[in-house]
Amino acid sequence: MNIAMIGLGKMGGNMARRLSRGGANVFGFDVSAETREGLAKEEANFRAFASVPELIAALPTPRVVWLMLPSGDISEAAFTELKTLLAPGDLIIDGANAMYKDSQRHGAELAALNIKFVDAGVSGGVWGLQNGYCLMFGGDKDAAEIATPFMKILAPDATRGWTHTGPAGSGHYTKMLHNGIEYGMMQAFAEGFAMLKAKKEFDLDVAEIAETWRHSSVVRSWLLDLVAESFSHDVELADLNAYVPDSGEGRWSVLESVELGVPAPVMATSLYARFASRGNDDYAMKMLSLMRNAFGGHAMSKK
Amino acid sequence: MNIAMIGLGKMGGNMARRLSRGGANVFGFDVSAETREGLAKEEANFRAFASVPELIAALPTPRVVWLMLPSGDISEAAFTELKTLLAPGDLIIDGANAMYKDSQRHGAELAALNIKFVDAGVSGGVWGLQNGYCLMFGGDKDAAEIATPFMKILAPDATRGWTHTGPAGSGHYTKMLHNGIEYGMMQAFAEGFAMLKAKKEFDLDVAEIAETWRHSSVVRSWLLDLVAESFSHDVELADLNAYVPDSGEGRWSVLESVELGVPAPVMATSLYARFASRGNDDYAMKMLSLMRNAFGGHAMSKK
Amino acid sequence: MNIAMIGLGKMGGNMARRLSRGGANVFGFDVSAETREGLAKEEANFRAFASVPELIAALPTPRVVWLMLPSGDISEAAFTELKTLLAPGDLIIDGANAMYKDSQRHGAELAALNIKFVDAGVSGGVWGLQNGYCLMFGGDKDAAEIATPFMKILAPDATRGWTHTGPAGSGHYTKMLHNGIEYGMMQAFAEGFAMLKAKKEFDLDVAEIAETWRHSSVVRSWLLDLVAESFSHDVELADLNAYVPDSGEGRWSVLESVELGVPAPVMATSLYARFASRGNDDYAMKMLSLMRNAFGGHAMSKK
Amino acid sequence: MNIAMIGLGKMGGNMARRLSRGGANVFGFDVSAETREGLAKEEANFRAFASVPELIAALPTPRVVWLMLPSGDISEAAFTELKTLLAPGDLIIDGANAMYKDSQRHGAELAALNIKFVDAGVSGGVWGLQNGYCLMFGGDKDAAEIATPFMKILAPDATRGWTHTGPAGSGHYTKMLHNGIEYGMMQAFAEGFAMLKAKKEFDLDVAEIAETWRHSSVVRSWLLDLVAESFSHDVELADLNAYVPDSGEGRWSVLESVELGVPAPVMATSLYARFASRGNDDYAMKMLSLMRNAFGGHAMSKK
Repeated sequence: MNIAMIGLGKMGGNMARRLSRGGANVFGFDVSAETREGLAKEEANFRAFASVPELIAALPTPRVVWLMLPSGDISEAAFTELKTLLAPGDLIIDGANAMYKDSQRHGAELAALNIKFVDAGVSGGVWGLQNGYCLMFGGDKDAAEIATPFMKILAPDATRGWTHTGPAGSGHYTKMLHNGIEYGMMQAFAEGFAMLKAKKEFDLDVAEIAETWRHSSVVRSWLLDLVAESFSHDVELADLNAYVPDSGEGRWSVLESVELGVPAPVMATSLYARFASRGNDDYAMKMLSLMRNAFGGHAMSKK
Repeated sequence: MNIAMIGLGKMGGNMARRLSRGGANVFGFDVSAETREGLAKEEANFRAFASVPELIAALPTPRVVWLMLPSGDISEAAFTELKTLLAPGDLIIDGANAMYKDSQRHGAELAALNIKFVDAGVSGGVWGLQNGYCLMFGGDKDAAEIATPFMKILAPDATRGWTHTGPAGSGHYTKMLHNGIEYGMMQAFAEGFAMLKAKKEFDLDVAEIAETWRHSSVVRSWLLDLVAESFSHDVELADLNAYVPDSGEGRWSVLESVELGVPAPVMATSLYARFASRGNDDYAMKMLSLMRNAFGGHAMSKK
Repeated sequence: MNIAMIGLGKMGGNMARRLSRGGANVFGFDVSAETREGLAKEEANFRAFASVPELIAALPTPRVVWLMLPSGDISEAAFTELKTLLAPGDLIIDGANAMYKDSQRHGAELAALNIKFVDAGVSGGVWGLQNGYCLMFGGDKDAAEIATPFMKILAPDATRGWTHTGPAGSGHYTKMLHNGIEYGMMQAFAEGFAMLKAKKEFDLDVAEIAETWRHSSVVRSWLLDLVAESFSHDVELADLNAYVPDSGEGRWSVLESVELGVPAPVMATSLYARFASRGNDDYAMKMLSLMRNAFGGHAMSKK
Repeated sequence: MNIAMIGLGKMGGNMARRLSRGGANVFGFDVSAETREGLAKEEANFRAFASVPELIAALPTPRVVWLMLPSGDISEAAFTELKTLLAPGDLIIDGANAMYKDSQRHGAELAALNIKFVDAGVSGGVWGLQNGYCLMFGGDKDAAEIATPFMKILAPDATRGWTHTGPAGSGHYTKMLHNGIEYGMMQAFAEGFAMLKAKKEFDLDVAEIAETWRHSSVVRSWLLDLVAESFSHDVELADLNAYVPDSGEGRWSVLESVELGVPAPVMATSLYARFASRGNDDYAMKMLSLMRNAFGGHAMSKK
């Protein structure tokens, strides 16, 4: 069982570890020599390569190449290079958080070269090495069959936590909505705990509440487990900024809801809350201030 | 035609002016001697009093007393005082932005003393002196009839811009939703102009666009007139803070939607945008940051 | 260990079972003779009473009386009756989904009679008998101490799933926000699965996806466990109406967010989605249709 | 002054009338012979043509061709045909509610053929013939100069209601957000009036309230004028379905907000309300019902 892992960051590195510990021979590449060499020292079944062409040359055919790179330009460059290096019958698995329409395009472009393609949504974050990953992947049936043994290693065990969702693109479509749901759940918890914390009259112990809710409540969930663990160290969050990035999948979920004509108000409002946390609604808020002043003579807050 | 005006601030002061210019004898009180004396010098039909008891003693019966005070404690204190000073057959008109349930209560309390009551929603802001006010008022039919001649002076003219909405409380209920709508319209404009301004590639002249939309567009409105006028001076708003207060009526509109079971997502989201502009979602946003770190190892923005 | 359980419905009945199986002597009352007699036959440590006065007369002092009734009129009537039946030193635990301000009032009213009070938020639903309940309860320290042994039986085990949150009212405040979070999580899942199902081109197996996400994904949660179980029977939901009730706690969460000035857009939008599912936005939607026709001549959908 | 008008529907027909009455010679085409011949009989300066090629052959050069067709396939086909019929130096003005990125593409494609291009956002609906239209148009300076005399006729008068916004695409970008704002304003009014109507205890006369608000209130606006006029005929709306279509611009506004990273919660929630009015949230609502049943044993509403 041989597999290439290209991109050995927080996700790809741990996936390489889990694959190699699970019995696969992993051929790894990362732009950071330190990263790839470190893994090679650490894992018996892992070999590091200094370039993608060297790696591809060493990998037995038919090749299985897992891409674990940021979606967008970096992933696109990797696809372009691999098209020149791979042969008919080889398989690319893209594990990035890629837009599903890009994955449909990749699938079609690779099919024209008789290269197989699987788009794999991967959930589990930094805990995946220990707990296994949740995998939802799309692609033709024969491509999915080649990918499946690796999925069984990455998953919590061979019987659970992975599914072949359908044609190319469907894996990343499913992952997109997984993350859309995640945005909504996170915002729900954030609103609730913010309101618990804001109720000065009760002086509630939110760490204790989070811990208690983990057991038999309707909201028990892995996100709550993480909140409870974090709160056991600090609940004031005094050293944090109220500044939240967003990545593509929350945005794509909202775009898709508009295209489908299916309401997604919780996903949209969760995304917009993050935009606003970064000051992106400042102009709008200033305009409200301006209008209040113009009609009612209300004072404007000035710098 | 005699009327007392208690509270001569931005709203009450101009309403006293409009009433006195319209032929009413206005008996005015304000806690600020400077304010009330200034008005007395300015307006022929306006007399200033140094206290509410002196004013009430001078006002011919049956008395008409217009309260134009902040809702809440200050208004409540005025009601309490007036109950001891007024006589059966007198009329209190409350023009504050009061919660309609408070006005229902005031109406009932005054009815027990045979004092009449009208709750008047007043819109028009600082432009009311010049343009007239929009008035929606509740109360028993006989109370409304006594109030009507004054409404005709305050309104743009005797035939338009005022309505007797129904029983006590219905005037402030109507005004509450007027303001709820206003919140939504303001937020809609704010979002739209913010997106025009954010589109760097087009370098749009938002002042010119606002001015153009005033003529024959679907969004033409008084709020847009005000935006266009403000934008003619400044569109960058660089000296403003993105900090927007809210007053009671937007909040009450949302509370009422929940009580009625009628969705008001635009009103709620407009209100919450203001809350967030004041940093009231900071804890929630910090928690999102915390969760992203906990599951994905994403860096947290720190102070 | 003696405790009265008043109200033996879906929640109270199972809680009585769990208490009696856990070693408490349960004195039970329900308006349904069939319900209370059925329980008496079923559970060794459970005695049924035909009236509350009979039950209270039989219950050893100091008494512990758990109310598990619908909040509102029925609960209020029970409080009123119990005030005449109980003695100083007795304890009422209210396990209803009550508004926390009502619980603060109950606490104060009972304190005036030297009757102790605990407000207990109870989560876990119909699975509580088997899994234990999650309990968050408020009240004075001495009242909480009396309640705690019973909480340890109801909870998953003596060490987890229960917490004394603070003064009277704080238990139901905490439960209110638990449910507010629950509303948001449910809506997030609903939106996500609706979008999976709506993507005809992929023909996704949402049952399989739900099952897969249970393992190692970020959205794994008890709600997802339940979805996966339900979906294993039916994913089309063809015999269901798109009609969703709401109970008090979602509403109260939104009201509280407005009072606190803390944004809760996900909670509000989740609540409003339920309102709309019941046709409560019909008039608003008809007005949109009317306006579109008025400005654009667009056809209106007519009955 | 010669201009072609291709597409003589509700918008194009009236624009042709206004142009011809304003002194332009209008060369008209519509797929409906009845429509185009009707206009020819009605308007002195209007000539009907049975096909686009015949029209283009008759139109003096340099030609000005206004497209007033549905965006999408029909517009695209017209562009394709016109590229084969027009000559360098001719001008196409696209007045459709087109996606601004499509207009940027059209501009670039036509520039390659030395055909000029203007994208014109047109607001005013069925009232434009009488009141004039509000016009916001993009394109190169020389193209805009050719278009301007026609804009002055279409606008309320030569001095107001039209603006050259910037490069190609900027006109439709501006119109997109005009409509995004319109969605928010409509929803705000709809929510407010729905809540007025739902307050049975006050039995409010919403027609009278709408009429009153037209005068001096903060929410006075053309949309409110239309509401008041419609309400003067009927306020119950009993024969309407709560079913609201949406066209592209509301959707595009939300998509753009996501691309820009600028929050647009009012626009999004307004759009989603329309989606839901058409039953597009049914599956989501059924899932809520399913979950409530699964955890709490709550009855599901069944068909």
